[in-house]
Amino acid sequence: MEYRVSAPEVLREPLVVPDKLLMGPGPSNAHPRVLEAMSRPILGHLHPETLKIMDDIKAGMRYLFQTNNAATFCLSASGHGGMEATLCNLLEDGDVVLIGHTGHWGDRAADMASRYGADVHMVRASSGSSLTLAEIKRAIETHRPSVLFLTQGDSSTGVLQPLEGVGALCRANDCLLIVDTVASLGGTPFHMDRWEIDAVYTGSQKVLGAPPGITPISFNHRAVYHHTISSTLLYGLREAIALACAESIPSLIARHQDCAKRLYDGLLGIGLELYAQERDRLATVTTIRVPPGVDWLQVSQYAMKTYLVEISGGLGPTAGQVFRIGLMGQNATSERVDRVLQVFRDAIKAVKPDFAFRRNASKM
Amino acid sequence: MEYRVSAPEVLREPLVVPDKLLMGPGPSNAHPRVLEAMSRPILGHLHPETLKIMDDIKAGMRYLFQTNNAATFCLSASGHGGMEATLCNLLEDGDVVLIGHTGHWGDRAADMASRYGADVHMVRASSGSSLTLAEIKRAIETHRPSVLFLTQGDSSTGVLQPLEGVGALCRANDCLLIVDTVASLGGTPFHMDRWEIDAVYTGSQKVLGAPPGITPISFNHRAVYHHTISSTLLYGLREAIALACAESIPSLIARHQDCAKRLYDGLLGIGLELYAQERDRLATVTTIRVPPGVDWLQVSQYAMKTYLVEISGGLGPTAGQVFRIGLMGQNATSERVDRVLQVFRDAIKAVKPDFAFRRNASKM
Repeated sequence: MEYRVSAPEVLREPLVVPDKLLMGPGPSNAHPRVLEAMSRPILGHLHPETLKIMDDIKAGMRYLFQTNNAATFCLSASGHGGMEATLCNLLEDGDVVLIGHTGHWGDRAADMASRYGADVHMVRASSGSSLTLAEIKRAIETHRPSVLFLTQGDSSTGVLQPLEGVGALCRANDCLLIVDTVASLGGTPFHMDRWEIDAVYTGSQKVLGAPPGITPISFNHRAVYHHTISSTLLYGLREAIALACAESIPSLIARHQDCAKRLYDGLLGIGLELYAQERDRLATVTTIRVPPGVDWLQVSQYAMKTYLVEISGGLGPTAGQVFRIGLMGQNATSERVDRVLQVFRDAIKAVKPDFAFRRNASKM
Repeated sequence: MEYRVSAPEVLREPLVVPDKLLMGPGPSNAHPRVLEAMSRPILGHLHPETLKIMDDIKAGMRYLFQTNNAATFCLSASGHGGMEATLCNLLEDGDVVLIGHTGHWGDRAADMASRYGADVHMVRASSGSSLTLAEIKRAIETHRPSVLFLTQGDSSTGVLQPLEGVGALCRANDCLLIVDTVASLGGTPFHMDRWEIDAVYTGSQKVLGAPPGITPISFNHRAVYHHTISSTLLYGLREAIALACAESIPSLIARHQDCAKRLYDGLLGIGLELYAQERDRLATVTTIRVPPGVDWLQVSQYAMKTYLVEISGGLGPTAGQVFRIGLMGQNATSERVDRVLQVFRDAIKAVKPDFAFRRNASKM
């Protein structure tokens, strides 16, 4: 039988993948050991070597989440799949869910929970700030939710949500606690068991610097169907976790926080303003107010075009208002901080040559 | 704060990935060009180079599916995700769905459709056979489904379901047609548009020999949310599709069919029996009846342990009854057919030394 649709010419051209510096809110650049692992031969998803790699990942993620949960594993999905897996497993039709809103990911969780038929309530932090324990307590007492959803690090606002005390509050009110750590894990402390968190997920492509498409997750209780999980993604994730374990959580976090501090100093030093309040800043994603008269998109495009460096704009509630610089995994080094500061400065200057870079290190 | 869960010792050991010959029903071995592509640097999921790769994949998959559908793309999921995406997008609560059953994947689709609230009916082929057009017609007229689901190649039975004429029948009866080509595409002819198929998906890790975890799919109409798709999986899939396009569909299919013929001849030549009827055999997965007195699991384990060659047992309705040998992508070569025949024979002999390898090429 005749083949009416022809083979496309474009597939005769070689695959083109430039090497960029990904200083946005993720994905971040991966370690060469992670990339090399992805080229290993394919294994069956139920082969003992694959199961061993899954066990390694499980052990490593228990350390990184600081949990003893048996149900600690990874999903064949982006971080978004982690949100879906936690919400759809812990919510029943008509259940009341309370979403702590510190940015775009609260909106996304609210949308998703309402599609699962939940009765969604929001508790909103003011712009650039996190929620206080008192605000969360009041909202729980008002709405009596069966599930509370919080984003530890909201990448749209760069706001860090403190979690200490929230788990105890939830248990006292017969409520399950889900925490999204996609943009925060490894860049800021996290203690799943001690903080009494019932379900958590993170992003592979952020601080861990593994490829996207495979999402570490942990539950108190859960059952999972087996499918053809991507062995090559497992290799990459395994190596990324091994690197994080070798570095240890305290060093990993200290490195991210030191770099964030260096970035804040650099930005404030040239007179730029940060969006997140000082006490609520997420080390892994820094939000910078777009200065008046500066076209953020032109700045971002200039940085990519001229330097192959990614500097992002806002997202959701911060769209058009902020730049976002990510410092995650391989990109959390003082060299890369200095590089992104230099590129950012050059890009603003190129787009708005009369921009006054004030020396104003005390600002904010 | 103290870290109570320690970093696991096991992650200090190197990643171990042996190079096996995957002659089961998938995943198959990947071409070195595909594996190499997976080590390229991470790109953002919305970067122009990533979008270009997605466009390349789209163009290549239109050729491989033989369709002009705009909605031809890939899901960040295993083939199971393709089943879910087609069923959940085309079924509404209470809709009648008819499942053509030629093996395990019909059961799986029925389970899934009933979870989406559909009114599920089955039309069952007899063991080792496909459904005739007359059987399908009668079932459509009896149940009046809004969706018909067929598996072109059921990897549990090695049965090939003919599709010609089914699309026209569906259109005449106001029914949508979904076809699962996970185990068949590229190994047997497929013409989406000419056969009037409304939704189709395939497996990346079968004939294409791309990594698992990314599933090509095509719809007449559909909308999709963007998430952090796995750029490295896209690279691998792009290269796998480029290889298939360079080879061309007729050569690709002829190669799979020639190899299947060589395998059948070899198996029948030593007195083994095939499970699927001759006219209903799927080139990519061959099912072989377990001879009386032979322990299939020991044979399979011996082949893996001694030769690092995968030969699988049955699945679902064929569990314990058959062996399954896959000839897919890189593994569809006469050298690999001869290799798997030799290993299979040696394994049976090792497990049951008195097994009589009859010379009986006319059997079945």
